[in-house]
Amino acid sequence: MGDIADSGHDHTGDRFAEDPAFAVHEGGKLTVTPTRSITSIADLALTYTPGVARVSSAIAAEPALARRFTWAPRVVAVVSDGSAVLGLGDIGPAASLPVMEGKACLFSEFGGLSAVPIVLATHDVDEIVAAVTAIAPSFGGINLEDISAPRCFEVEARLRAALDIPVMHDDQHGTAIVVLAALRNAARVVGRPLGELRVVVGGAGAAGVACTKILLGAGIGDIAVADSQGILHAGRQSLTPIKQWLVEHTNRAGFAGTLLEAMQGADVYLGLSGGSLPESAIAAMAPGCIVFSLANPIPEVDPEMAAKYAAVVATGRSDLPNQINNVLAFPGVFRGAIDAGAHSITEAMKLAAATAIADVVGDELRPDYIVPSPLDRRVADAVAEAVAACARQEGVAG
Amino acid sequence: MGDIADSGHDHTGDRFAEDPAFAVHEGGKLTVTPTRSITSIADLALTYTPGVARVSSAIAAEPALARRFTWAPRVVAVVSDGSAVLGLGDIGPAASLPVMEGKACLFSEFGGLSAVPIVLATHDVDEIVAAVTAIAPSFGGINLEDISAPRCFEVEARLRAALDIPVMHDDQHGTAIVVLAALRNAARVVGRPLGELRVVVGGAGAAGVACTKILLGAGIGDIAVADSQGILHAGRQSLTPIKQWLVEHTNRAGFAGTLLEAMQGADVYLGLSGGSLPESAIAAMAPGCIVFSLANPIPEVDPEMAAKYAAVVATGRSDLPNQINNVLAFPGVFRGAIDAGAHSITEAMKLAAATAIADVVGDELRPDYIVPSPLDRRVADAVAEAVAACARQEGVAG
Repeated sequence: MGDIADSGHDHTGDRFAEDPAFAVHEGGKLTVTPTRSITSIADLALTYTPGVARVSSAIAAEPALARRFTWAPRVVAVVSDGSAVLGLGDIGPAASLPVMEGKACLFSEFGGLSAVPIVLATHDVDEIVAAVTAIAPSFGGINLEDISAPRCFEVEARLRAALDIPVMHDDQHGTAIVVLAALRNAARVVGRPLGELRVVVGGAGAAGVACTKILLGAGIGDIAVADSQGILHAGRQSLTPIKQWLVEHTNRAGFAGTLLEAMQGADVYLGLSGGSLPESAIAAMAPGCIVFSLANPIPEVDPEMAAKYAAVVATGRSDLPNQINNVLAFPGVFRGAIDAGAHSITEAMKLAAATAIADVVGDELRPDYIVPSPLDRRVADAVAEAVAACARQEGVAG
Repeated sequence: MGDIADSGHDHTGDRFAEDPAFAVHEGGKLTVTPTRSITSIADLALTYTPGVARVSSAIAAEPALARRFTWAPRVVAVVSDGSAVLGLGDIGPAASLPVMEGKACLFSEFGGLSAVPIVLATHDVDEIVAAVTAIAPSFGGINLEDISAPRCFEVEARLRAALDIPVMHDDQHGTAIVVLAALRNAARVVGRPLGELRVVVGGAGAAGVACTKILLGAGIGDIAVADSQGILHAGRQSLTPIKQWLVEHTNRAGFAGTLLEAMQGADVYLGLSGGSLPESAIAAMAPGCIVFSLANPIPEVDPEMAAKYAAVVATGRSDLPNQINNVLAFPGVFRGAIDAGAHSITEAMKLAAATAIADVVGDELRPDYIVPSPLDRRVADAVAEAVAACARQEGVAG
């Protein structure tokens, strides 16, 4: 691999020459290479016919041997329909490819796994499920990416039911795992038990739903979730099934007001919606509050302003401390699941991943260091180990 | 990449330790790697968010930029349903993976392309077509492999119609291209114009059909094709559509006998059926005849016996001269098509590929050297250049 500094072709007068992001993408960001070179007829006869026939025959007779003698178990498909790409929206499969290639790079760099971008020429749930189910024997895991809500919930649920390999929609669960890791450490910073915090979640899309679920699973009982119409409560009409689920599992007090009203006296604001919140909303939170404002590139709450009131501030930005970045989760989660031969990624495995991420920070904990750096190579190993151990304990390992 | 000699893990008492083919397959034969390493937050911000968003936005605005800034255009999907794998038959997707990985290795080694095995959990034509169509934006070409006849004909035809990237069923056309290349040179050896040869094809499966078509396209007018019931002729009942096509385009004389009867006085026998032919069949061919007996690993005609009667003998075996090996065709065919931005692989492009392969032999032509070695690195370049030139001339280039 060359350094990124070397990667630009010389395109004199090229309108893309000014932006180094284009140089990095010239020719794409991935390559598939043989693990062993073919330099003789003997090599050819072992890698391909006739030698390969003996390996294929052995697997046909004993399917479990595919785990040892093929690459598939350690390859993750990064699957997207390009319908909810970053903040760009529905840009379609071809334009989403650079994002999926980038994700595959991160699987390789941090997880030691191979990953292949699979972008789909359809937004239809049935067609997505059918296509991914059809190609699944080629892979050891399915990372769903940038599929818009609410379709993403159904796609993930149906694929989890259909396949015996790990399936995870990273926009939901990768984010949720890192948010929980960060909140665990933020609670330590402010000296509060996690379970006592009152949390307000702004946003009921893929990330909002998954974060709420994992926080409930981690023992936080008092959570209110807002969508664009305000806090979800039993009086709301015509909700999607997933929002109905949130109504039934959050907002015990039955609060029926706006997001800003709910934030009064709250301990934690978790922003996953975009848009902009006024200073008064943060000023009205409880003393020593925690603000995670994750819209990217522009957080819902100005981080400098938030720091005037909050004990801990985190964002999604790489140029600020406490970056909530999914790369802390997905490479280790998939590697741990694959190492254990897990047939799925369970709630317990996600909780174990969050604890492992939080524990990497350890005694170095500070208000501006509640999660490890995205480049911290210790994280994926720690996550993989914790996830694999959990899988074996739960009996979901193969 | 390590040497193959280094590749075996130490598995004491391992029942696979005796066979070096298993050592070569340990852990699989492929890996996906980033083209540039990620060692800083700046790298991360260019390879992934936020930098990647600028590249995705540019492609969304101008789709043709995907060709420059994603890897997809130079990635071939090696697609199989595992229904007709080598001589092993219907062994299913998982057991077919080593073959597809091997094919992907050859695309890399000889074509300089990336290739990804996609094995399918379905034999249903509609489902195969739907799945491959759905994932097609991820790839620059579709190499269909080891799909049984007659489904392979419909799958290929429908995917060619549906997609604007090259689609080729290699068992048909890769074999046909190399057979035509070899026959061109064999005709030179015996000093006969190609068009005057009387050819008998044994086998009307994927390879038999495609070889017959390309030989017709190359100007050979007198071809008889036999399936297990004998020579195809107008009196045969209940034929599949493709065999009906063969009836209408071959066997001008309307010969209605057996394969062995048809071989009497024939100039060329092309064996693509398996099984075994008696010495008398070869002895009855015309003087200076040509025998291509391609069943693997056991040719239909014993090559030593055939050499008693034939001026040129070729097989599919790597341990004998004149090996008819698809690797001479597919890496260069796909690379040429991709280099030219071709939307399909046409008959003319296949003919150009065959001529390019034959021409590599040049003045070194001998009865036991009618095709280059599968390891001859000149071949893929020559084929790619000829195919790309043909695509540009035909106007199928993008």
